[in-house]
Amino acid sequence: MTSARLLVLNGPNLGSLGRREPEIYGADTLADIEAALGVRASALGIELRCAQSNHEGVLVDLLEEERDRADGCILNGAGLAHTSVPLHDAVRGFGHPVIEVHLSNVHAREPFRHTMLTAAACRGVICGLGAHGYLLALEALARIIDTERRP
Amino acid sequence: MTSARLLVLNGPNLGSLGRREPEIYGADTLADIEAALGVRASALGIELRCAQSNHEGVLVDLLEEERDRADGCILNGAGLAHTSVPLHDAVRGFGHPVIEVHLSNVHAREPFRHTMLTAAACRGVICGLGAHGYLLALEALARIIDTERRP
Amino acid sequence: MTSARLLVLNGPNLGSLGRREPEIYGADTLADIEAALGVRASALGIELRCAQSNHEGVLVDLLEEERDRADGCILNGAGLAHTSVPLHDAVRGFGHPVIEVHLSNVHAREPFRHTMLTAAACRGVICGLGAHGYLLALEALARIIDTERRP
Amino acid sequence: MTSARLLVLNGPNLGSLGRREPEIYGADTLADIEAALGVRASALGIELRCAQSNHEGVLVDLLEEERDRADGCILNGAGLAHTSVPLHDAVRGFGHPVIEVHLSNVHAREPFRHTMLTAAACRGVICGLGAHGYLLALEALARIIDTERRP
Amino acid sequence: MTSARLLVLNGPNLGSLGRREPEIYGADTLADIEAALGVRASALGIELRCAQSNHEGVLVDLLEEERDRADGCILNGAGLAHTSVPLHDAVRGFGHPVIEVHLSNVHAREPFRHTMLTAAACRGVICGLGAHGYLLALEALARIIDTERRP
Amino acid sequence: MTSARLLVLNGPNLGSLGRREPEIYGADTLADIEAALGVRASALGIELRCAQSNHEGVLVDLLEEERDRADGCILNGAGLAHTSVPLHDAVRGFGHPVIEVHLSNVHAREPFRHTMLTAAACRGVICGLGAHGYLLALEALARIIDTERRP
Amino acid sequence: MTSARLLVLNGPNLGSLGRREPEIYGADTLADIEAALGVRASALGIELRCAQSNHEGVLVDLLEEERDRADGCILNGAGLAHTSVPLHDAVRGFGHPVIEVHLSNVHAREPFRHTMLTAAACRGVICGLGAHGYLLALEALARIIDTERRP
Amino acid sequence: MTSARLLVLNGPNLGSLGRREPEIYGADTLADIEAALGVRASALGIELRCAQSNHEGVLVDLLEEERDRADGCILNGAGLAHTSVPLHDAVRGFGHPVIEVHLSNVHAREPFRHTMLTAAACRGVICGLGAHGYLLALEALARIIDTERRP
Amino acid sequence: MTSARLLVLNGPNLGSLGRREPEIYGADTLADIEAALGVRASALGIELRCAQSNHEGVLVDLLEEERDRADGCILNGAGLAHTSVPLHDAVRGFGHPVIEVHLSNVHAREPFRHTMLTAAACRGVICGLGAHGYLLALEALARIIDTERRP
Amino acid sequence: MTSARLLVLNGPNLGSLGRREPEIYGADTLADIEAALGVRASALGIELRCAQSNHEGVLVDLLEEERDRADGCILNGAGLAHTSVPLHDAVRGFGHPVIEVHLSNVHAREPFRHTMLTAAACRGVICGLGAHGYLLALEALARIIDTERRP
Amino acid sequence: MTSARLLVLNGPNLGSLGRREPEIYGADTLADIEAALGVRASALGIELRCAQSNHEGVLVDLLEEERDRADGCILNGAGLAHTSVPLHDAVRGFGHPVIEVHLSNVHAREPFRHTMLTAAACRGVICGLGAHGYLLALEALARIIDTERRP
Amino acid sequence: MTSARLLVLNGPNLGSLGRREPEIYGADTLADIEAALGVRASALGIELRCAQSNHEGVLVDLLEEERDRADGCILNGAGLAHTSVPLHDAVRGFGHPVIEVHLSNVHAREPFRHTMLTAAACRGVICGLGAHGYLLALEALARIIDTERRP
Repeated sequence: MTSARLLVLNGPNLGSLGRREPEIYGADTLADIEAALGVRASALGIELRCAQSNHEGVLVDLLEEERDRADGCILNGAGLAHTSVPLHDAVRGFGHPVIEVHLSNVHAREPFRHTMLTAAACRGVICGLGAHGYLLALEALARIIDTERRP
Repeated sequence: MTSARLLVLNGPNLGSLGRREPEIYGADTLADIEAALGVRASALGIELRCAQSNHEGVLVDLLEEERDRADGCILNGAGLAHTSVPLHDAVRGFGHPVIEVHLSNVHAREPFRHTMLTAAACRGVICGLGAHGYLLALEALARIIDTERRP
Repeated sequence: MTSARLLVLNGPNLGSLGRREPEIYGADTLADIEAALGVRASALGIELRCAQSNHEGVLVDLLEEERDRADGCILNGAGLAHTSVPLHDAVRGFGHPVIEVHLSNVHAREPFRHTMLTAAACRGVICGLGAHGYLLALEALARIIDTERRP
Repeated sequence: MTSARLLVLNGPNLGSLGRREPEIYGADTLADIEAALGVRASALGIELRCAQSNHEGVLVDLLEEERDRADGCILNGAGLAHTSVPLHDAVRGFGHPVIEVHLSNVHAREPFRHTMLTAAACRGVICGLGAHGYLLALEALARIIDTERRP
Repeated sequence: MTSARLLVLNGPNLGSLGRREPEIYGADTLADIEAALGVRASALGIELRCAQSNHEGVLVDLLEEERDRADGCILNGAGLAHTSVPLHDAVRGFGHPVIEVHLSNVHAREPFRHTMLTAAACRGVICGLGAHGYLLALEALARIIDTERRP
Repeated sequence: MTSARLLVLNGPNLGSLGRREPEIYGADTLADIEAALGVRASALGIELRCAQSNHEGVLVDLLEEERDRADGCILNGAGLAHTSVPLHDAVRGFGHPVIEVHLSNVHAREPFRHTMLTAAACRGVICGLGAHGYLLALEALARIIDTERRP
Repeated sequence: MTSARLLVLNGPNLGSLGRREPEIYGADTLADIEAALGVRASALGIELRCAQSNHEGVLVDLLEEERDRADGCILNGAGLAHTSVPLHDAVRGFGHPVIEVHLSNVHAREPFRHTMLTAAACRGVICGLGAHGYLLALEALARIIDTERRP
Repeated sequence: MTSARLLVLNGPNLGSLGRREPEIYGADTLADIEAALGVRASALGIELRCAQSNHEGVLVDLLEEERDRADGCILNGAGLAHTSVPLHDAVRGFGHPVIEVHLSNVHAREPFRHTMLTAAACRGVICGLGAHGYLLALEALARIIDTERRP
Repeated sequence: MTSARLLVLNGPNLGSLGRREPEIYGADTLADIEAALGVRASALGIELRCAQSNHEGVLVDLLEEERDRADGCILNGAGLAHTSVPLHDAVRGFGHPVIEVHLSNVHAREPFRHTMLTAAACRGVICGLGAHGYLLALEALARIIDTERRP
Repeated sequence: MTSARLLVLNGPNLGSLGRREPEIYGADTLADIEAALGVRASALGIELRCAQSNHEGVLVDLLEEERDRADGCILNGAGLAHTSVPLHDAVRGFGHPVIEVHLSNVHAREPFRHTMLTAAACRGVICGLGAHGYLLALEALARIIDTERRP
Repeated sequence: MTSARLLVLNGPNLGSLGRREPEIYGADTLADIEAALGVRASALGIELRCAQSNHEGVLVDLLEEERDRADGCILNGAGLAHTSVPLHDAVRGFGHPVIEVHLSNVHAREPFRHTMLTAAACRGVICGLGAHGYLLALEALARIIDTERRP
Repeated sequence: MTSARLLVLNGPNLGSLGRREPEIYGADTLADIEAALGVRASALGIELRCAQSNHEGVLVDLLEEERDRADGCILNGAGLAHTSVPLHDAVRGFGHPVIEVHLSNVHAREPFRHTMLTAAACRGVICGLGAHGYLLALEALARIIDTERRP
């Protein structure tokens, strides 16, 4: 596979990974996750742009900004995944495959985490597999982009 | 009519108009819309302040900032229209007539777009009429302000 | 624009406009509204057929009757807008653009007015702008018909 | 009490009283009920206009028509009581006290009869007392009109 | 009619009638209402037992106690009318006709007053007619008992 | 079978069959359907009365009018099937077997078409089988009437 | 019509027809119904495969197995009709027209029978017409297959 | 008590206190409230960091930033209190006691203010007590911190 | 402040405080809480009447009894807070400011504790702050009474 | 088993057993049931305290009073079982095993009897087995107490 | 009592009793339970047929098969109890008394276990009493059969 | 990693993969998927047991059977994922990590596919990534087992 670019977008509270409720979200920090993604992306010949924000608006900004540059996105919208129509719309407007990742299994938690609003605009979802879920999403996007580019 | 000032506020993802899902939102860019509004506003003797943001907070900031300056507002809160209590409250706090505009007919789309939370705080709503809806809102606000200023 | 014909359809209780709850619906009578529409329609080269009925069936009859004659419709279904499947179906069967108008902002009133059943079959909705809403709908329909006729 | 006029309005299927499901609605015909009301109204010096229709539109027409003539209304909207926004609005527009009557106790029947939409616009409700309920409503209206006319 | 006995049962907060929110519940005290009922009952040859309690349990006690003595009941369960399964069951266990009375029109008030739980066990309901509603209920019960006693 | 009479009742918008949304409702006109029913009814020795109306009230009128003449009814209440309590009550008051027919499969369409209010008062339902559904309903009613007449 | 093959699939508890709650489901046994279907199918030149199972899995197995052999299916999923996503999916995967049959009128029974999950994947539904409903479904499928085969 | 630090966090629209709907929110400005809190905090030996933002993201940023510095938080999330999962999660991630304050009694207002999403992550809630509620929250936090520090 | 009188009303199960589920409700007994309130009330020149009952009726009785004597009330309706319409009505009838107190944070507990029925009739709510919440309510009422007495 | 003490608590309307709706609740009186329980309890060496009240408060009082004396409770909360948070809390506060008994099968009755609020706080439930259900509950409690006392 | 035969039917996952989540379901295996039932049944002169299956269809098969042989059934439908319409219908078709047993108290567990679908077709329910619940059900059925056989 | 064993369980309709609605489920057959999994499992030193069934009961049987042999499971419950309590319970009883896989993005499909009942009992979910999702689940399980085995 040659030259793909992926956006790795992490939403509210994910900057505190490793310290915030580690029994739910695991011990890896976001830097750890981004580093692991970077290593694997290099091997796959994929360029990454990683960003985290607690601001819904920044997440939307980035999806707009990367529309003409990126080929896909790994999105952990965190709490926004359940209620944000703007993020849902931004994913649809982005126009490339997006895989939603959640560290915890949201289906096994409080009812307000069972509404999957942004997921409805994504290609797929990986949840409950901790930090490893990001790497799986990377593999999946690499394969999707590769497949969809073929004549 | 003399000297009115209107805020034209566009919410999340509307900066990408003309490129994002044109079969739903039309081919006009936000710049096209603002230009058309500007021409008509001049003719009506109305000063416009146009702003777009993907950030709920910025939309609230602007409504607060313009409370003592503007006489009304055209608001397309986009996806925030269905869930944002802060924007609902900001419209109420603004104290001048606000007309909510949507490019598409939200009532004919997904159920989560049927909840009209910010509209409940507005004077009225125009939806489904594309970019033209903004011009109609401008006419309506001009008339409302004119009428309510009369002794 | 040459020779378009529009149906202006007003539903239950709108014959009493100007007298019924003027603090909600305004002081204009339906005759006032129809007269204002007539003046503006003439200027736009549009022929109007105005009708009001308290009978759902009559509204459906008229939409059927005008299917092959009219080019669009301004519809204020009043209370029927929230529950009438027959009117929803009639709008779909009519086959031309329909703009739903409400004098009051239904989203700010009782919960039973928040269900927008006929609106889901219309091109767009204008609500909360009083009698002026009809004129805006006329402008919008004139533009839509004009645009959609162009080669 | 001098010279009051009341509208007695019966809705869908009530023309078949005495024959339709008498175990629910009783053996009295509508003519029996209207005759009994007439006798009592005369004694009270009240003029009655009795009407029955299976058409929602006719009920709304009559409430509009009597707005400037009648002083109150006894309304049995039958099945329309649970879903008709037009009738709710017509009662509000009528502007005089309306008492809703149901022959059967709607609260003890199917769930779709538990929504009391037109009742929300009325002064009061009498249900489950059969034909006698109309006479009680007449007494109540006579008293209300009398009381509210007093200086 | 000869020798009937009726229970007149008033529930929570009705001891404060005339003082509690008179704009909703009217200016009559419970003593006024009971006195008026007494006068009319005498004329009808009916013996009354009037009681008021803020205790659900006392209302249930009285319905049990009067099962073998009374021929019917006028019941204003007040706030209990919307939630009390024990009172619903007690009305069913009482075995004689019960008419539920509410001073205000509960259908026009908060949503939690729209659930009519005890009414589902009663013969009928009179609401929104103020203190007069009790007298109407008395007339209705007198007639029901008289009718049902006839061979 | 000898001498039965059936009412064939079509509700709102069905007068436009063949022209209204043929991809949903098929290419047959109502006249085509009534003609085909007439041929088959003759063969079965059944007299038909066919009527169509966009007015709920007319449908109720006809069910009342035919109560003492007809032996059954084929009813396509169209949009009224989902919300009309008056039509539900009229079917119950009619007292003869009624089969509800829908051209399209309502269960595969919008959620508001999933509530089957009038069907709850009918003998059975045939939906999704287009114009042929009416002929099947005719066969079914012929058989039911024949069976229930046997000693 | 030449050489069509239909699957006749009956779900849980239908093996007990004629004995189980005959006041609801009628006196015919499943063998009676299958025999009647066989006679009529022969006349129409249709081959039938009849099967009954109390196992959702068997019903799905059979729909898969007959995908390349049968031209349509009469399906009475019984209790599974209201909750089985697997059966819904199997009907969709089957790829030929399926008509759902219910002996009783499910819309007039308990609320849990009002959800029509498998019907949403079928061509149409016939319910409430007892054993005769199967014969009507056979006629309908014969006609559909015949019509859709025509060039 | 020695050396505690509290975050005082005010959400959307609270910068306009004293001017926005004073009949609901009172006449005190946010500066007034912060000044009063400062005086009392000094007396209690507590250091305050006061911040207001219309941006959900900023509120989350601050809770993260103060995780290792502050000992508790007074949080008025305003409209975000009812819908913001990110703020709920940020409160949980903060790890110190948080008391939610609302100026108005949200339980007596519109239904969308009855969902208390962030409160579910807090230690307690004080609402409806106006500006004084902040001082009570300060007293409560002082006591909680003091109590929980004790060996 | 001079001579105010407050009712301190505790509802079902609160007589067992200190022994019932102390991990939820804390170790203080009701006597402890009333003693602490008494000390602080004396200092504020406020007379207290403290009462606890497991009977809804007694709580209503006391609110009625104190209507003309007390100036406010601290009310912990415990489990009744979520379902009791009588207590809601009694608070409204009481006519003086009432502050609802809960020891635990009801918003973080079972869904049936999220409905705040009596709170809708109160001035404000303090929950989740344990026994200290009562003292805060006392401070708040003292201030409210003082403020509202001022000319 | 030696020396256990059980509370047998019966709620509203159960004092009328044997006379109230015997087709639902059976012909045994409460005295019959208590006598049968007494005989069996003696045989098991269990002391019983039997009480019945129509007052929720009395039931709560008794559970509190017996907390330190009884080892378990048989509770038929009757109508309170579906709505009483105080009784739910009292069962939790009681701290010993409680078995909820209902004479009728509540799951086969009206929807408002399907909410099992107090059952959620109990050890188990026995319903639909008439008076015998109490004896089974006694057996069950005897066994539970015996088992849980073992070292 | 002479010669009764009972079906003891255990549904999905109950074959793993004693090993699956023993903190919820207890340490007894199904063999233990069946053995204990066998001993007691012998003493009562009752013949048992015990079966367990993870297949809904097998449970339905067995209820059909035993319709003419058994006199009652102890049914633990496990997870099927909450959703299976086929099992509900099979219980109704079985025609003999069925007692539903659950080892755990389903009312105290996840909301999806609160819907009691099969219980609505049973005579009664015993839940939360562990393996002992089966023995109690056996006692209850023995008594019911004995009682209902008496002339 | 040494010697792990995984169950690969596919539910209803998945035996038809590649032929059933390939636009939704893709062109790969189940044999293709199992072959690809086999290759990768070998490389990881993992033994697979692959099974597909249209029978809920068989899926439960297999989870029970493999409890003591397998170390994890890849489960695509297909339509059962949304409604099957037995499968949910079987996953819990299995006791090893289970990853739920769906070929399509269920969150973007019909509402009845949004309820994730079995997922609530699983470790995580991968959906919308087609056949590749199984391989990702394999990688994830390999890692989880490896990690959790480490001392």
